[in-house]
Amino acid sequence: MSSRRKFIQNLALGTTLAVSLPEIVTAAGIKRTSININANDVILFQGDSITDAGRDKSKDDANDPRTLGTGYAFIAASQVLLKKAPLNLRIFNKGISGNKVYQLAERWDKDCLKIKPNVLSILIGVNDYWHTLAKENAYSGTVETYKRDLKDLLTRTKKDLPNVQLVIGEPFAVKDVRAVTDEWYPAFDAYRLAAKDIAKDFNAVFVPYQQIFDEAIKHAPANYWTGDGVHPSLAGAALMAEAWLKVVGI
Amino acid sequence: MSSRRKFIQNLALGTTLAVSLPEIVTAAGIKRTSININANDVILFQGDSITDAGRDKSKDDANDPRTLGTGYAFIAASQVLLKKAPLNLRIFNKGISGNKVYQLAERWDKDCLKIKPNVLSILIGVNDYWHTLAKENAYSGTVETYKRDLKDLLTRTKKDLPNVQLVIGEPFAVKDVRAVTDEWYPAFDAYRLAAKDIAKDFNAVFVPYQQIFDEAIKHAPANYWTGDGVHPSLAGAALMAEAWLKVVGI
Repeated sequence: MSSRRKFIQNLALGTTLAVSLPEIVTAAGIKRTSININANDVILFQGDSITDAGRDKSKDDANDPRTLGTGYAFIAASQVLLKKAPLNLRIFNKGISGNKVYQLAERWDKDCLKIKPNVLSILIGVNDYWHTLAKENAYSGTVETYKRDLKDLLTRTKKDLPNVQLVIGEPFAVKDVRAVTDEWYPAFDAYRLAAKDIAKDFNAVFVPYQQIFDEAIKHAPANYWTGDGVHPSLAGAALMAEAWLKVVGI
Repeated sequence: MSSRRKFIQNLALGTTLAVSLPEIVTAAGIKRTSININANDVILFQGDSITDAGRDKSKDDANDPRTLGTGYAFIAASQVLLKKAPLNLRIFNKGISGNKVYQLAERWDKDCLKIKPNVLSILIGVNDYWHTLAKENAYSGTVETYKRDLKDLLTRTKKDLPNVQLVIGEPFAVKDVRAVTDEWYPAFDAYRLAAKDIAKDFNAVFVPYQQIFDEAIKHAPANYWTGDGVHPSLAGAALMAEAWLKVVGI
């Protein structure tokens, strides 16, 4: 029996009474931190396909739904713009599908520094590992490459924007869903830990996405939260946005 | 001085201390009602461009971010799928830009009845009025046409789906923003009131969108919430979703 069918059967056996989900983000012990958001601030989301989420790259306006994709960045942005309405914020998403850290670096002047974000949120790393597994033209970077590239990127960012407030997301994967096989472990864990360590070194707020997905799969089957183990479903994107908002203090 | 500049100046004069927005939806006095959502239920959003919000009409999968547009339906759906994760819900958006009630009726078999929603949310009416103002080929329907068409549509729906739970959104407009001129009033108000009366007649939950936009413009300029007076900005869409979720009890 598939895990999904088993899950539905369990529902039928009595847990339908619990129609309202406990707050996964609260259950995961995620706490508010101290990002300050002021009038006229700029918030920038950066990353790979999880951040990109099909955004319209032909347009460049802040707060334009089409430019924000249909992922966690869009959902988080919508809540920031609602809850901080009097602040006249401008929010951008410049994630690009397939990116690894070195590819962020290649477009950093245009897609980050020139935008002068007050809050910069970066989620990067799953491709730095995943693409090493490719059958053809596999990426040759290691976790040491990832660490060096990410530190270099953040050092460069802090040099140009000394007051930028950093939010770093934990690269995550949901095991046993399509792309994410046993082969990933323990190698992939080192990337998660590297992101966490580097966040601490750069005084960044850290969003523990792996922790919330680990909690989420207690409430619905893994493939409810992600179609392939790497890219979140709409429910997964909403979960990520909730964690992001909580951590950022919104 | 533009209202936006004046608003920003007011911020600078001291209200920046109030960085967190009071809950507009709470301030508007919107209350939870009694929609029941059960395991495996189907939720359908129907309406015009405000619901459509650029959705990808080439796909038909439930819960697919691309098929849900980038408006209030997407944001509300994301929160429903997160907060009701154990229920295995399926959510669709079948709004089509430009639609008036009679155009919903023309595609109702395919785009509603066949989908067999347990919860059907309809927001329709602004075009039933707005298109009467067109310089060429103006729509000849009146508020009486709107009432008759909407009652007929709901009667037909209830006949085919006797247990469907209805959510009816109030058509709304934000005065003095681009398209919405003095010319709209008081004629447009009759459409809002008609929707409210019909919601009551059909035992539908009513989402008072006009009321929340009237409240919202106390917190940020009108053009922060809508670009043209009719279509919500991302902040406006988030506001609508928050009201929808509150009214539906999620």
